[in-house]
Amino acid sequence: MFDDIPLKYELLHKDKNSNARRGRIYTQNGIIETPVFMPVGTNGTVKALKNTDLKDIEAEIILGNAFHLFLRPGLEVLKNVGGLHNFMNWERPILTDSGGFQVFSLRDRKISDEGVLFRSPLDGSKIMMTPELSMEIQMTIGSNIAMAFDECVEAGAERKYVEESVDRTFEWAKRSFKSHAKKDQALFGIVQGGFFEDLRDRSLKQITSIDFDGFALGGLSVGEHYAETERILKHSGPKLPENKPRYIMGIGTPLIILMSVENGMDMFDCVLPTRMGRHGTAMTWEGKVNLKAGKWKYSTDPIDNKCDCYACQNHTRGYIHHLIRKDEILGKILLSIHNLRFLINFVKEVRKAIEDDRFIQFKEEFLSNPNNIY
Amino acid sequence: MFDDIPLKYELLHKDKNSNARRGRIYTQNGIIETPVFMPVGTNGTVKALKNTDLKDIEAEIILGNAFHLFLRPGLEVLKNVGGLHNFMNWERPILTDSGGFQVFSLRDRKISDEGVLFRSPLDGSKIMMTPELSMEIQMTIGSNIAMAFDECVEAGAERKYVEESVDRTFEWAKRSFKSHAKKDQALFGIVQGGFFEDLRDRSLKQITSIDFDGFALGGLSVGEHYAETERILKHSGPKLPENKPRYIMGIGTPLIILMSVENGMDMFDCVLPTRMGRHGTAMTWEGKVNLKAGKWKYSTDPIDNKCDCYACQNHTRGYIHHLIRKDEILGKILLSIHNLRFLINFVKEVRKAIEDDRFIQFKEEFLSNPNNIY
Ligand SMILES: [Zn+2]
Ligand SMILES: [Zn+2]
Repeated sequence: MFDDIPLKYELLHKDKNSNARRGRIYTQNGIIETPVFMPVGTNGTVKALKNTDLKDIEAEIILGNAFHLFLRPGLEVLKNVGGLHNFMNWERPILTDSGGFQVFSLRDRKISDEGVLFRSPLDGSKIMMTPELSMEIQMTIGSNIAMAFDECVEAGAERKYVEESVDRTFEWAKRSFKSHAKKDQALFGIVQGGFFEDLRDRSLKQITSIDFDGFALGGLSVGEHYAETERILKHSGPKLPENKPRYIMGIGTPLIILMSVENGMDMFDCVLPTRMGRHGTAMTWEGKVNLKAGKWKYSTDPIDNKCDCYACQNHTRGYIHHLIRKDEILGKILLSIHNLRFLINFVKEVRKAIEDDRFIQFKEEFLSNPNNIY
Repeated sequence: MFDDIPLKYELLHKDKNSNARRGRIYTQNGIIETPVFMPVGTNGTVKALKNTDLKDIEAEIILGNAFHLFLRPGLEVLKNVGGLHNFMNWERPILTDSGGFQVFSLRDRKISDEGVLFRSPLDGSKIMMTPELSMEIQMTIGSNIAMAFDECVEAGAERKYVEESVDRTFEWAKRSFKSHAKKDQALFGIVQGGFFEDLRDRSLKQITSIDFDGFALGGLSVGEHYAETERILKHSGPKLPENKPRYIMGIGTPLIILMSVENGMDMFDCVLPTRMGRHGTAMTWEGKVNLKAGKWKYSTDPIDNKCDCYACQNHTRGYIHHLIRKDEILGKILLSIHNLRFLINFVKEVRKAIEDDRFIQFKEEFLSNPNNIY
């Protein structure tokens, strides 16, 4: 596609009435139109979908998880097959998170300036996760986009702790950048700072001083109220460098995607659509629908009239209700396919709205249905 | 396809050196080449497969389960959508069992000449399953082939009980035949008699005295040693009417399929391939392979070199090992697809061997690998 550089961002159009932007990311494994929703494939599989299903729903890029893949299948296996693309036979782009979020979620972990010491959930052995190890893992995975190793603090963290953590994240970002040595892999930096605007500014200034290929807002969607997420998005989103992709980590409801796009973000990922799907809930253009509910028993309607996915083209709410009630794998498959396709189609409509300078109108229309606010 | 009759059997070729036969069954929903392996879709879904997967593996006919479908989604739902073909959007042939096997497997059931009284696993209410109710259920499901309601006795049952049961099965067969009133649905009778050859003869004489569209051997593969299954197959298989399809219920390993074909049987079904698949075991041309085993961690080979299924064309043993270890749904999907495709391909090879009068040679070659005997 192009030589030497791992990633190129092209800004195609800026919405006249908001910070929303329409762009394109070029990688060695294909082009990604932005804004983009990225399905999550924690363990080297987007849960319940075959690669052909992922292509059918037009997934342009998927996520892998450095921490989980480090534990299983492990670096030796990934080295042996030449990375995750080969391992899962997926030729389109892959982004990996740094493993930080998962390590910080463990109970028995100890944070120091060096890194995070934790016990392996597999065998209890002690492992020190450092920026250097995170880079090694992600380089072995061979994702198109790797993430710097950062500290993700909890929603209620005190100012003093967040302040320390911002500076530690900066040091780790520099070490990540320094130890990263894979020319065809992009590396993104992550801005932290909790819910303190001045600390967000400090982190943003620090992180964007490094020549990363893109930037992410981390530490959001950690249990806070949406108004808080929006406050930080409004404050920090538009300040991110315009010439590079902007990624907000771990978000995936239509409402917060709209908020993010409005404030200039390009990339989103979330396990919610597949997790909700496996538990029987569909995302639709009219809000969430719990297909486990008895009222769908006789329904001969599709999940969503407007949807073009395999589930909606072939099956009824009544049939899927039956599958979910019987805990049949096919129910989980169909709803996972549908929910991901819904979000991908949703983001496609967002793109069109930006191109036509009617993003705000699109957002207001969509949210005028209170069922769409979740 | 053709009017008035629900099913037509055409005998294409008889193997010169055995009772194996190559045939064709015409139904209102399509043609079935025999011998045929039929994937089981207990709850209106072949576990973990989409309909497109079933078409990819060339499933010619699938099974539905009268008892399970009676409980869920229930007859009202099935009536409302016009049967199981519509409910699951499957246009190819469907065969339903009578529900007998499941009812007899319940703990708290009481058998009388009228039928079987049992408690609903859903709500504890008392239900009397009779030949008439079984016919009503199967007519509502609208399968292409329905089965008469029979009594399936346990492997160790005493002669006296089996004798009574054979006569009761005859009475129930007559009542099934009498109450069956769906012109485009075929009805098969079931021969019982446990492991007593004279009782098998008695049952066969009784059941084949009724003008069923096909005949099944029931009460086999109920836990007995294969030598016992083979003894009954050898004794009864070739005595079944030559001009109608012959079905042996609930069997699905290559060895017993070969035994059955050798003795003139045409149709087989089993939950084993999908159940084994969900638990990590693959059926291959070189025997069973437990993909959960650590030795496959680094394997870059497909499950089976000879297989043309989606899993074998796209993924390695190492990847599937990883998925199974992580209990990922995709592992279950891939192994279910593979195992069903393996059996369907296996039976295709059996067909070719019969056509060429080399069935015995094919069987001996296949079984010369002791790993294939299971
Ligand atoms: Zn859909
Ligand atoms: Zn295969």
